[in-house]
Amino acid sequence: MKALRFTEDKLSLADIPRPSNSNEALVRVTKSGICNTDVEIVRGYAGFEGTIGHEFVGVVERADDRPEMVGKRVVGEINAGCGVCERCLGLDPRHCPARTVLGIVGRDGAHAEYLQLPSVNLVEIPGNVPDEQAVFVEPLAAAYGITEQIELHRDMRVAVIGDGKLGLLCAFAMALKTDRVVLIGKHIEKLALAKNRGIETVLAPEVGILGRTADVVVEASGSESGFATAVDLVKPRGKIVLKSTFHGSSVWQASRVVVDEITIVGSRCGRFAPAVDLLARNAINVTDMIHDELPLSKGVEAMKAASRKGSLKILLSP
Amino acid sequence: MKALRFTEDKLSLADIPRPSNSNEALVRVTKSGICNTDVEIVRGYAGFEGTIGHEFVGVVERADDRPEMVGKRVVGEINAGCGVCERCLGLDPRHCPARTVLGIVGRDGAHAEYLQLPSVNLVEIPGNVPDEQAVFVEPLAAAYGITEQIELHRDMRVAVIGDGKLGLLCAFAMALKTDRVVLIGKHIEKLALAKNRGIETVLAPEVGILGRTADVVVEASGSESGFATAVDLVKPRGKIVLKSTFHGSSVWQASRVVVDEITIVGSRCGRFAPAVDLLARNAINVTDMIHDELPLSKGVEAMKAASRKGSLKILLSP
Repeated sequence: MKALRFTEDKLSLADIPRPSNSNEALVRVTKSGICNTDVEIVRGYAGFEGTIGHEFVGVVERADDRPEMVGKRVVGEINAGCGVCERCLGLDPRHCPARTVLGIVGRDGAHAEYLQLPSVNLVEIPGNVPDEQAVFVEPLAAAYGITEQIELHRDMRVAVIGDGKLGLLCAFAMALKTDRVVLIGKHIEKLALAKNRGIETVLAPEVGILGRTADVVVEASGSESGFATAVDLVKPRGKIVLKSTFHGSSVWQASRVVVDEITIVGSRCGRFAPAVDLLARNAINVTDMIHDELPLSKGVEAMKAASRKGSLKILLSP
Repeated sequence: MKALRFTEDKLSLADIPRPSNSNEALVRVTKSGICNTDVEIVRGYAGFEGTIGHEFVGVVERADDRPEMVGKRVVGEINAGCGVCERCLGLDPRHCPARTVLGIVGRDGAHAEYLQLPSVNLVEIPGNVPDEQAVFVEPLAAAYGITEQIELHRDMRVAVIGDGKLGLLCAFAMALKTDRVVLIGKHIEKLALAKNRGIETVLAPEVGILGRTADVVVEASGSESGFATAVDLVKPRGKIVLKSTFHGSSVWQASRVVVDEITIVGSRCGRFAPAVDLLARNAINVTDMIHDELPLSKGVEAMKAASRKGSLKILLSP
């Protein structure tokens, strides 16, 4: 089968055998989405080698321990725990120290014709959610997961930093919970997607006009300066949600966090079921976030396009 | 009156007029305690000039707007808000952007014969709490305040980093809420104070034996390495309470906070009433934390002693 692989510091389209571990479900991928994490892997930041990609929708071809899933259209939680450690037994395989992660850690990913995952990871997609939307479940779950980590009220001021794919989804998700979201970004055309949904927007150079007014700041810019901006925006006793990672070390003023009694919440993945539900109820529509759709055979080219500043979601179809 | 003052980069005992603002209460100080923050001020880190000291117990000599307090033995909340801003109206003067702080920000402090504070800041001390214990209310409130910021259960593993005055009080306070506190420090004789109370202790060089087992880590060492140790100790989805500040910038690995979904809680002051209650109920005894008691006239010498590594609480009596 065709697969978009990163090996020996090089991205290429390869022909490899189909996954064959019968302990896991086999999924025929119908669409996959390119995430910034894919771009970072190809920059060599993550130490991963293999098939990249972790956002997908597909059809179950085989699931020996859950045969009723065969033929179903599914998305899949990307973390697979060892199943026996304290975290896994506590139903938190996402933090299993021996976990594999689809297309990120020790497990071939989704930019391929087929992938395999433990059948327990699969979540069925309702018929009214087309593939083009279902492929957003993973990043939408990550964005909406914030609402399960912190308490939000309708009158809270929430600032989201970063108008990339994740920042936009965070802003859309926050806007479901509060009436006072503001998205801060560098690209007028991306901010427009938020504006179209009635969300206030501010260009990054003008962020100072907001003052220290945010009850919650979501840092989703993936840039080191994003955290400093977050500290400048958040009220005393407010919360900063760290949503995106940046590589290497960065510098912070811990004393400000102490004196202002700020809480910083690290946030990575979210549960899939609520995200599927949001799409099924049309509470969030992601169609205008699709920048382009390309065949998997043009995967290398698609990754180049996804690396360009200003690019939104690029989908691949095997 | 005599006052221990830091002015023009120099600490000295000075003779200055008694405080005379009749809008505030006048307190005759009977004992004050030297905090590490005093030491840092004298090192020039805080940009404060004036009478230092913020831990005290004393007797109210005048309180025009609360005359029933005259003659009472009191401690006092150290933050004085402007009274009219959003934070003050929300009953949080501790985070008023225009606040003064006793002996720390824009307000003469407690290492003096008299001090003044808004009468609303004063908290009466029950008769069964001697001055030597009452003077610990401020730091004890800061330590016990953690229990109001995060939820603790009896079976949670809580690691406290730092066996200085604040670290010890944090360990004592945490031990009231959980059965599995471990204190990490560098001084056998200080760790012994925790051990005497049935608290597990580990010397810093051996911290690795603890592994990633802590549900909560309290960083109270005031050293930059403390945060890195905290990240190494905390479980995924665990909490790090930042209790002490260190000056300047420091380096952190934000990506670990995101991937492991760690929460960092900045924590500065706490409410006085619960701390007074702990002392009155003898739930926490602080007597063995007193390293020395000196007259205020020996304040400069006392500050030198307090600056030495390994020193515990030094009290001053005017």
